[in-house]
Amino acid sequence: MKKTFTRVAIFPLCIVLLSGLIFPWLQVNLGAQPMEDVAKFDKDGKLLLPSDYRTWVFVGASVTPNEMNGGKAPFPEFHTIYMEPASYKPFKNTGEFPEGTVMVKETLMIGGKEAPSGKGYFMGDFVLLATGVKDTKRFGGERAGWGFFAFGNPSNPQSKSEVLPVAKCNNCHSAAAQERVFIQYYPVLRDLKKK
Amino acid sequence: MKKTFTRVAIFPLCIVLLSGLIFPWLQVNLGAQPMEDVAKFDKDGKLLLPSDYRTWVFVGASVTPNEMNGGKAPFPEFHTIYMEPASYKPFKNTGEFPEGTVMVKETLMIGGKEAPSGKGYFMGDFVLLATGVKDTKRFGGERAGWGFFAFGNPSNPQSKSEVLPVAKCNNCHSAAAQERVFIQYYPVLRDLKKK
Repeated sequence: MKKTFTRVAIFPLCIVLLSGLIFPWLQVNLGAQPMEDVAKFDKDGKLLLPSDYRTWVFVGASVTPNEMNGGKAPFPEFHTIYMEPASYKPFKNTGEFPEGTVMVKETLMIGGKEAPSGKGYFMGDFVLLATGVKDTKRFGGERAGWGFFAFGNPSNPQSKSEVLPVAKCNNCHSAAAQERVFIQYYPVLRDLKKK
Repeated sequence: MKKTFTRVAIFPLCIVLLSGLIFPWLQVNLGAQPMEDVAKFDKDGKLLLPSDYRTWVFVGASVTPNEMNGGKAPFPEFHTIYMEPASYKPFKNTGEFPEGTVMVKETLMIGGKEAPSGKGYFMGDFVLLATGVKDTKRFGGERAGWGFFAFGNPSNPQSKSEVLPVAKCNNCHSAAAQERVFIQYYPVLRDLKKK
């Protein structure tokens, strides 16, 4: 009875356990990209809202105050830039943006101008969520491999976005230091390139 | 022969595979803290340099330009604040800093004042790396549960740091909105508290 149990029950049990464990383990440990963090498009080519991007890798921030731009800065005032972790890992080694790279930009208003750390600019409320995606097949020609998207206010974002017109994003981004990414303003990426 | 093989070889094989897979899987999926990301102290109570903190969760940035502070800002000018991911997860649910929370502050000089996005302040070179650790046993009394540490320039940091004097950090941090953390300036944490 004992031997029969061993043969009949343990073997299938092991198979069931293994199938449930091997796949998540391989996914995590061999660097398979968690699908929810990679650009997904609907059948009309609209980009779906990225999830959980505030745990992505921060690469840099800047501030363009209204008062330094004639009362109306081109973008609401603070910018925070993130890079999707599955793209960041190969960038660390190669210094290049892999196909499928997703960058996120959040903008925020200035929330205050004085704190115990001194006078300056401190982050206020979130205003805009935008992304850039490297997909050389989808965004060829004058887009030079990059599509840009906007999802509105991060507190109540749109669920999807059409690719924005070349004149609205790509033209300005052609002044970026690497492909269409302004790494000249992103100290975390600049630092990786030095190593 | 076939049955003997099944009984003799498959069962130990399963055990070996399972033992190698279950532990990493449990560690990742049940939220066990990766030890390398949690505060570690040497036998003299010095904090060891945290590793890989640039992949931690960014919670906010601010800038205190020299020119807005009589030519000499109290801190080199940009501040970037990170929270260790194993602390961020419970904070999302509770809005409280769990015991063992580690925060990192990096400061950077202003690198430029004009870009295609407008006039403002853009991040330059890294200057300082500092951390705050919540450890109510180690940092009781007037430290109110928090120890602060400095590791010098992030490009060539010290390997360990003594806890800094109360007068150097904790006193100022008593103006923070939650415990000794200035969450009033960290939009990502403020946003979690709203939910």
